[in-house]
Amino acid sequence: MTKGQPAVVLLSGGLDSATVAAVARREGFELHALTVSYGQRHERELEAARRVARSLQAARHVELAVDLAAFGGSALTGSGEVPKDRPIEPSVIPSTYVPARNLVLLSLALAWAEAAGARDIFIGVNALDYSGYPDCRPEFVESFERTARLATRAGVEGAPFAVHAPLIRMTKAEIIRLGVELGVDYSLTWSCYDPGPGGAPCGRCDSCRLRARGFAEAGFSDPLLVARPE
Amino acid sequence: MTKGQPAVVLLSGGLDSATVAAVARREGFELHALTVSYGQRHERELEAARRVARSLQAARHVELAVDLAAFGGSALTGSGEVPKDRPIEPSVIPSTYVPARNLVLLSLALAWAEAAGARDIFIGVNALDYSGYPDCRPEFVESFERTARLATRAGVEGAPFAVHAPLIRMTKAEIIRLGVELGVDYSLTWSCYDPGPGGAPCGRCDSCRLRARGFAEAGFSDPLLVARPE
Repeated sequence: MTKGQPAVVLLSGGLDSATVAAVARREGFELHALTVSYGQRHERELEAARRVARSLQAARHVELAVDLAAFGGSALTGSGEVPKDRPIEPSVIPSTYVPARNLVLLSLALAWAEAAGARDIFIGVNALDYSGYPDCRPEFVESFERTARLATRAGVEGAPFAVHAPLIRMTKAEIIRLGVELGVDYSLTWSCYDPGPGGAPCGRCDSCRLRARGFAEAGFSDPLLVARPE
Repeated sequence: MTKGQPAVVLLSGGLDSATVAAVARREGFELHALTVSYGQRHERELEAARRVARSLQAARHVELAVDLAAFGGSALTGSGEVPKDRPIEPSVIPSTYVPARNLVLLSLALAWAEAAGARDIFIGVNALDYSGYPDCRPEFVESFERTARLATRAGVEGAPFAVHAPLIRMTKAEIIRLGVELGVDYSLTWSCYDPGPGGAPCGRCDSCRLRARGFAEAGFSDPLLVARPE
């Protein structure tokens, strides 16, 4: 690839997407960061996305509102409780699953990529230390890539899109080690699905626990927790 | 299928989607109509969608705003002129193409379908009397169906989604004859991409011309034009 080509990077403000954005940057892409506000309860994520986009010198950062909460069906968009302390078992899809979320996100990223003349899309999905969501698996990403080719002018005209999911087969500890190597400032990121009234991570949702386990296994302290006054 | 099952129908307010909604209703589905306001210039379409949803007794009608104009890249969302009187030639994709639009629309329909427990999605795409958009072709719809199976909890758990595109191989005249048979009130629908200052259809964009040709071939007058005071 030519240096300085644009790439659309889905940036949630979480640990994985910040790492993926740093990977795209290391590969020489000019970052077009896309943050979708889809009605998630944790607005803190959106602030984190802004900070991460700034720290990685994204050329553009679009925040797009798409109110998936209008459809209901997920604990993350307001229907029911976020589960705490549950056994994280990839064969069970938890109530925090948001119907078709990653397909919606990738479709929007594709819309931007085609409009901006980008041919590359980056997404931080992970099918190893994850919550069992179906739309985080390699077979989903591959199928999306095929559909994207058929859905677009660029694909039909012989310039298909590549969907990069560089973290998909990495453990959380490996992701964190990679991010530290690339200089990602994890104190800017946010993972918790259900922060407490004081704004602290709950420490008990899947996302907090996968993050904590990852930092422990990687042998680092989580700067988000270190930085917080007690 | 069991009578009264919900189905999500993508309803733009145009002639094709109104016909598809009537087909879904005839098949016994309870209509969940989804209208996406994606930054198109022709706001008139949204009013038409409301009227059509009401006339077809949709059980629910969600209007969702997704600002694809933030990405640019289409004459329909504000970048450049809507072409007039051009030869309609399926091998040429015109500037009214909106990058990845139907993929975004189907992904949103899928999100609602899964949340609502629906297994059926209807879309009014047509690959015969059409503007050459890549995301109106059967191979795109089939590929989307495969991706949808991999993207969702329902798909993974063995209850995949069916994407119905009953108009895909019909001429515009055949679509209009079918709609008339099903009692569709075409005076409620709207097709023009670029209405004049007085709110009249321009008569010269692709959409107006395909509509006019369809009514002429079907042997009907267009009630939208008949109803208008001169």
